[in-house]
Amino acid sequence: MSWSDRFSEVARDIQSSEIRELLKLLADPEILSFAGGIPDPALFPTADFQRIAGDIAADPDRNRDALQYAPTEGYVPLRQWAMDHAGAPVLELSIDNVLVTNGAQQGLTLLAGALIDKDTPIAVAQPTYLGALQVFATHQPKFVTVATDDDGLQLDALETALQSGVRFLYTIPDFQNPGGFSQSEARRTAIVALAHRYGVPILEDTAYRDLYYDAPPPPSLLQLEARLLAAKGGAGEWNKDGLVVQLGTASKTLMPALRIGWVIAPEVLVEKLVVLKQADDLNTSSLNQMLAHDLASQVLDRHVVTLRQTYGERRDVMVETLRRHLPNDAHFSAPKGGMFVWLTLPDGMDAGALLELAVAQEKIAFVPGAAFHANGGGENTLRLSFSTCQPDDIKRGMERLCGLIRKEMK
Amino acid sequence: MSWSDRFSEVARDIQSSEIRELLKLLADPEILSFAGGIPDPALFPTADFQRIAGDIAADPDRNRDALQYAPTEGYVPLRQWAMDHAGAPVLELSIDNVLVTNGAQQGLTLLAGALIDKDTPIAVAQPTYLGALQVFATHQPKFVTVATDDDGLQLDALETALQSGVRFLYTIPDFQNPGGFSQSEARRTAIVALAHRYGVPILEDTAYRDLYYDAPPPPSLLQLEARLLAAKGGAGEWNKDGLVVQLGTASKTLMPALRIGWVIAPEVLVEKLVVLKQADDLNTSSLNQMLAHDLASQVLDRHVVTLRQTYGERRDVMVETLRRHLPNDAHFSAPKGGMFVWLTLPDGMDAGALLELAVAQEKIAFVPGAAFHANGGGENTLRLSFSTCQPDDIKRGMERLCGLIRKEMK
Repeated sequence: MSWSDRFSEVARDIQSSEIRELLKLLADPEILSFAGGIPDPALFPTADFQRIAGDIAADPDRNRDALQYAPTEGYVPLRQWAMDHAGAPVLELSIDNVLVTNGAQQGLTLLAGALIDKDTPIAVAQPTYLGALQVFATHQPKFVTVATDDDGLQLDALETALQSGVRFLYTIPDFQNPGGFSQSEARRTAIVALAHRYGVPILEDTAYRDLYYDAPPPPSLLQLEARLLAAKGGAGEWNKDGLVVQLGTASKTLMPALRIGWVIAPEVLVEKLVVLKQADDLNTSSLNQMLAHDLASQVLDRHVVTLRQTYGERRDVMVETLRRHLPNDAHFSAPKGGMFVWLTLPDGMDAGALLELAVAQEKIAFVPGAAFHANGGGENTLRLSFSTCQPDDIKRGMERLCGLIRKEMK
Repeated sequence: MSWSDRFSEVARDIQSSEIRELLKLLADPEILSFAGGIPDPALFPTADFQRIAGDIAADPDRNRDALQYAPTEGYVPLRQWAMDHAGAPVLELSIDNVLVTNGAQQGLTLLAGALIDKDTPIAVAQPTYLGALQVFATHQPKFVTVATDDDGLQLDALETALQSGVRFLYTIPDFQNPGGFSQSEARRTAIVALAHRYGVPILEDTAYRDLYYDAPPPPSLLQLEARLLAAKGGAGEWNKDGLVVQLGTASKTLMPALRIGWVIAPEVLVEKLVVLKQADDLNTSSLNQMLAHDLASQVLDRHVVTLRQTYGERRDVMVETLRRHLPNDAHFSAPKGGMFVWLTLPDGMDAGALLELAVAQEKIAFVPGAAFHANGGGENTLRLSFSTCQPDDIKRGMERLCGLIRKEMK
């Protein structure tokens, strides 16, 4: 018997992501890559990080706690910070509503474990974050896709999905990965109302929420739900009636290597997630939690100003260059924040084939969009990231890409 | 519909561990606790840790890599170190046989995901590590328990289990948690031979392997398997014919807060675990991997000498005091390493009830043994840890415990 004969059904089904394989090919430093969805390491707050790490090391009590096993729920001050960041005290949250996770990805892992049985229907946007599709897939759900437009989830498509009895909706309301769109307040309000009408939980992923380049995004779904419950006269009842579960992360605004994320949820769900996390990895590093807390509370507010400035300029250059050079038969979103521009090629043009040409002929790379589609489709779409490239490179890269598309249209 | 109505079958089944609930009760500083299974924080190599953290921070290239997302497989020098630590180059391992995990617990999580379907039979020692039982349980296997004696797994019981078609055996050959026993070389050799006779993989957990207080433990199951394959003339065939998967951790010898563990497995299995880890949490913190690597390669060898000395003295005091005071109708193991002494109370005496008395009357705590039994039983057993208490406290605590047992026997 070989090892592959011993694999579980889930392990046999799961495959390495296309993106992962793709990124391996991009080690060539001559390639100008718009493929990654990662922060620019030149923007990490390294000086603050080192100062804070030194402060923790210099305090014997903190240092000792920092290096030991720790409660699964997480470091109390960080839970408090996450709660405030999400909107407490306007929202009636307590730290019992917050679980610290090993990056937001583990939050998705735990929520998937808590809520998905084999063949459970769950609703996801078309397109949506590949990492969510991957972790959900390990529980073998039935994906129900919800169509999107430049403003995000389409309400009629969403209502159809919710009516069909999905266990939850997973959504990224702010500057979505990969679509770049941000839901308007009106649409957000309607989404929360629909969720309550059909009694369907929403997993709200706020990974890009702080990275806005024009104006702050509308209230979060969690905040809008509080408004809805208050209007019903149900203040203080969120632990019983709340349906919005929020995921947050320090990876986009501080540093991915902290591996710090959090889940905000009604207490009964948090309690279950804690038990699942204990089985999964016991606890998140105390040291990393302390570092994340101190950075978030001391540095984040001013640091995101720099990020907004720098990423905003890059976004502007990408959007401007595409506006100028992209053929009319193609279409792109102009995001108000985040890291991504979503591009739809002319009908019948395959983004996978285009990538091969782009790498070989133009030395540029992007991610073909098909991988972001839970149930297939999207072969003529692609994702461009502007987060790690300098403005001149973005201009040059987009000109080359548009030239290539134009050439392929002939 | 309430949240608990929405829970998956797994989430409904999984419960917070008794130990976890118990430990919450032990916040009282007057309680002398032998319950934890954690290293003594006073022994952490904090000065080395700070020096190494400073060195990484002072190197701009390393520092930048340390804070960014990273390949799922792990930091190459750490994988190299883990491979050497496991016995390469005598064993023909490459770094493609090593995956870095978020503590050894995540290694168990990924292996469980790769190998267990619902109702899959798997073999575990009776008793065994609770955290393994918990993570395996999230995949709803059928536990097949293998009886143990003071030398570990009983071979006839093991053969019966392997014959029954279990998917794998999970075992801790060195200074087992909770049993304290270490398998002899003869028994290890027989275990590996049985695994190969029946074609059953072994997950070998080496968490305590470096913590020996008398003499180094016999070769690992992985090393003995290499010997077996070499005797068959199959050198270099481990990737095809190997059945032993080894789990390691930096938590017991360096610091738990690094959250660094590793899995050593045939390539085809590592490739699958990588995909599962990517879905689970993307990657382990690069910074923590660099810290673990530098500590492991620069500090570990001399640091474990200190640990062996200090923990060894504590072991001696616990064993000596129990030898002197434990009533004859009770029985305990005298471990040659690790952190635990396993105690069997007189027939009919319940360790859970004894704990309540111990806390209330004697201000001491331990872990009742039932939780370490996959299929029930062990009500008259308990686990004592000597890792975090000073010798005088251990002596005083064991005298009180023995007195209480004696009183309860009347």
